[in-house]
Amino acid sequence: MIKQEDLPLMVDLYELAMAQAYWAEGMADTAVFSLFFRELPEHRNFVLACGQRHIAELIGQLRFTEDYIERLRQLNRFQPEFLDWLKGFRFSGNIRAVEEGTPLFPQEPILEVTAPIAEAQLLESLIMNYVHLESVLASKAVRLTFAADGKPVVDFGMRRMHGLDAAHRGVRAYRLAGLTGTSNVLAGLDYGMDVSGTMAHSFVQAYPDEMEAFKVYARLYPGTTLLVDTYDTRRAVRRIVDWLRQEPGVRIGAIRLDSGDLEQEAMDCRQILDDAGFTEIKIMASGGLDEYRIAALLQAGAPIDGFGVGTAIGAANDAPALELAYKLTEYAGEPKMKSSSGKTSWPGPKQVFRQFDGNGMAKVDIIAGMDEPVDGAPLLETVMADGALLPGFPAPLDDLVSSARDALAALPEPFKRLQPAKAFPVEFTDYLKNLQAETLKKVSV
Amino acid sequence: MIKQEDLPLMVDLYELAMAQAYWAEGMADTAVFSLFFRELPEHRNFVLACGQRHIAELIGQLRFTEDYIERLRQLNRFQPEFLDWLKGFRFSGNIRAVEEGTPLFPQEPILEVTAPIAEAQLLESLIMNYVHLESVLASKAVRLTFAADGKPVVDFGMRRMHGLDAAHRGVRAYRLAGLTGTSNVLAGLDYGMDVSGTMAHSFVQAYPDEMEAFKVYARLYPGTTLLVDTYDTRRAVRRIVDWLRQEPGVRIGAIRLDSGDLEQEAMDCRQILDDAGFTEIKIMASGGLDEYRIAALLQAGAPIDGFGVGTAIGAANDAPALELAYKLTEYAGEPKMKSSSGKTSWPGPKQVFRQFDGNGMAKVDIIAGMDEPVDGAPLLETVMADGALLPGFPAPLDDLVSSARDALAALPEPFKRLQPAKAFPVEFTDYLKNLQAETLKKVSV
Repeated sequence: MIKQEDLPLMVDLYELAMAQAYWAEGMADTAVFSLFFRELPEHRNFVLACGQRHIAELIGQLRFTEDYIERLRQLNRFQPEFLDWLKGFRFSGNIRAVEEGTPLFPQEPILEVTAPIAEAQLLESLIMNYVHLESVLASKAVRLTFAADGKPVVDFGMRRMHGLDAAHRGVRAYRLAGLTGTSNVLAGLDYGMDVSGTMAHSFVQAYPDEMEAFKVYARLYPGTTLLVDTYDTRRAVRRIVDWLRQEPGVRIGAIRLDSGDLEQEAMDCRQILDDAGFTEIKIMASGGLDEYRIAALLQAGAPIDGFGVGTAIGAANDAPALELAYKLTEYAGEPKMKSSSGKTSWPGPKQVFRQFDGNGMAKVDIIAGMDEPVDGAPLLETVMADGALLPGFPAPLDDLVSSARDALAALPEPFKRLQPAKAFPVEFTDYLKNLQAETLKKVSV
Repeated sequence: MIKQEDLPLMVDLYELAMAQAYWAEGMADTAVFSLFFRELPEHRNFVLACGQRHIAELIGQLRFTEDYIERLRQLNRFQPEFLDWLKGFRFSGNIRAVEEGTPLFPQEPILEVTAPIAEAQLLESLIMNYVHLESVLASKAVRLTFAADGKPVVDFGMRRMHGLDAAHRGVRAYRLAGLTGTSNVLAGLDYGMDVSGTMAHSFVQAYPDEMEAFKVYARLYPGTTLLVDTYDTRRAVRRIVDWLRQEPGVRIGAIRLDSGDLEQEAMDCRQILDDAGFTEIKIMASGGLDEYRIAALLQAGAPIDGFGVGTAIGAANDAPALELAYKLTEYAGEPKMKSSSGKTSWPGPKQVFRQFDGNGMAKVDIIAGMDEPVDGAPLLETVMADGALLPGFPAPLDDLVSSARDALAALPEPFKRLQPAKAFPVEFTDYLKNLQAETLKKVSV
């Protein structure tokens, strides 16, 4: 397991190698690095950027302790004086980042680091790992909420999430994406999300008769949800109805369907429950659900009141990776860019301005130089200055959840459909276009 | 970040709810749970099972400390006496598991837990999360080694891996899968894998002229790899050749190509290097590589000597999830199974016997009852008894790497191709078939 003290070594070797080179050359001028993605992943109309302020909380605390310096020494690549420099490492720079839960589009900076170049370089992989995980999971989970159209979607994904850190931080991302609950106890407690859960098939199977299992649960957990598909779903529901008629004091909140033809089973079960007058008992569905199946079920009129989703959100299975890039855009006041084929980048520190129409809906994003005066709401905000978080950061997660909800509400409808939308209009200012052209000339000499 | 003390709460709520129900009912008989997958993920001819013994190392140490009991109390679902029971929780059962790095097929048990039912139930999500991550990543990474056909494949995936735990434990899985190096410093040190890395484009860009960057690196890191595609790849290589001719003392190990038409660029760069007599300088490739692109490059004769792979292995992007199931197969001596539509399971504790042909190649797997005498090598071995790891566990990772290599070597060729293979023959014994039929009759009453 990764401990706080481990973090400085969660680094790709080249970052340390480059840092030593900068140190050896006395190159300590200020660099600006920008984090962005070049293209939307397949099946995504936007990326819900998350994690970029979460990681800032950790950056100020990074320290290379003696034990870890010793381990680096074993690699036989680092000079003793450089290792001494690492021992004194404190991040001293600035971080600007968009609010968590902001829908973003290609080329838009998610976060920018301004710091002595070695410091900014050392943070590369850690920042990317943090923002990648939370953005990938949030960008998938938000699609489930679109499909469920107001009905609750609960995270059942812990078992399919990639490791414990993903299972934990993922729940933070799910909250920002609008999910309403999680089965994960620790993550739910840590991130203030409703923790819920019912029973597994094993519980039903442990009893000679499934009705015994149901009765035990109903007694212990009034208003519980009963898992009815272990053997024969309709038979189970009919037997529940008989029991509830005989024992009117018993309170069941819902039944859960986890296999089979969910549409047909939900309709049949609804019918059995309604015919017996149990109209208040809800039907929850789970088992291989994703946004397309949820949309299809609701479209077909399946009487399902809520969804538990595991695999689809746990690994963001249709787009588990996002091509994030962390690129140098300025060093010692000089704009920098790549001109590699297909990967040409935009130089200089930047700001993104989101402009809205009269109804408060996002209309266009303008990517500008950091200090250009442009109309619209600037998305990047200074979170950390001189290595210290500014007052107000980290913001309470409840506030982030509510601002994420507002940012999503301002997104035009086509971007909230499951189908691909036309690209959201993102424009670069003339200043940046000129800067790119001039910088390209210099590097092509 | 998840600490050791956090682990008992990395649990889905229903596991605690079921445990309380078993406790309340005094149901403490022995249960057997089996971990397996129902179907191969798309694009996989087998799953390289990993993590099943790694997690066993942690299970014996799980303790609910006072702080965590207090947090559970806040959920208002647990009785004080049950929380006292949790305080005294020590896993007291047995774990049988296949060797890590074993290629497995659908329905084959990866791990079986035999313990008082509440104890076995509490481990469900933690075991699944562990085995899922390592198996998913290893099953992808091994395909890269097949494609590279003996040429080194190095993990560059940290930035795309889902969180820090994945980035760390993933490297363990990659070692078992046969990767030869990683860029991840901490994981490489912890799991004994060669740590390597070159330079980023930012390093090249930080200098007014890329040749300056190359010279700094070559001086600090003799034999280093130079990243040549920041601006114009061929021009960079021609300038390197001119420099090396002028300074014969300088030693460069390789150049790295990270963009563009890798096949053509590798051929052109090879030509430039060879024409100048630098035949010993190797060519490394990276940038959006997966097993198909690597195979196509080598098939086309691209003179590439090694590959750095990020996204494809970092998130196992074409099959990031595996439908693992952790199912009750026996309770209090009674066989148990599900008969849900499409999810019928096999009752009883089991063993898998792998049979080999005269050349030592795997021929067929027989899934049998745990104590049935069957020919072949039994794959499940007892790792933990009465809550304690047996002598010899955990085995040194070097031993696991070598046994994984042997297990892969015994796998017939078609399963090591990138294309889909016919299903590997997996048979159930008559004993299990009868047990399933009889159990099905009982649960269908």
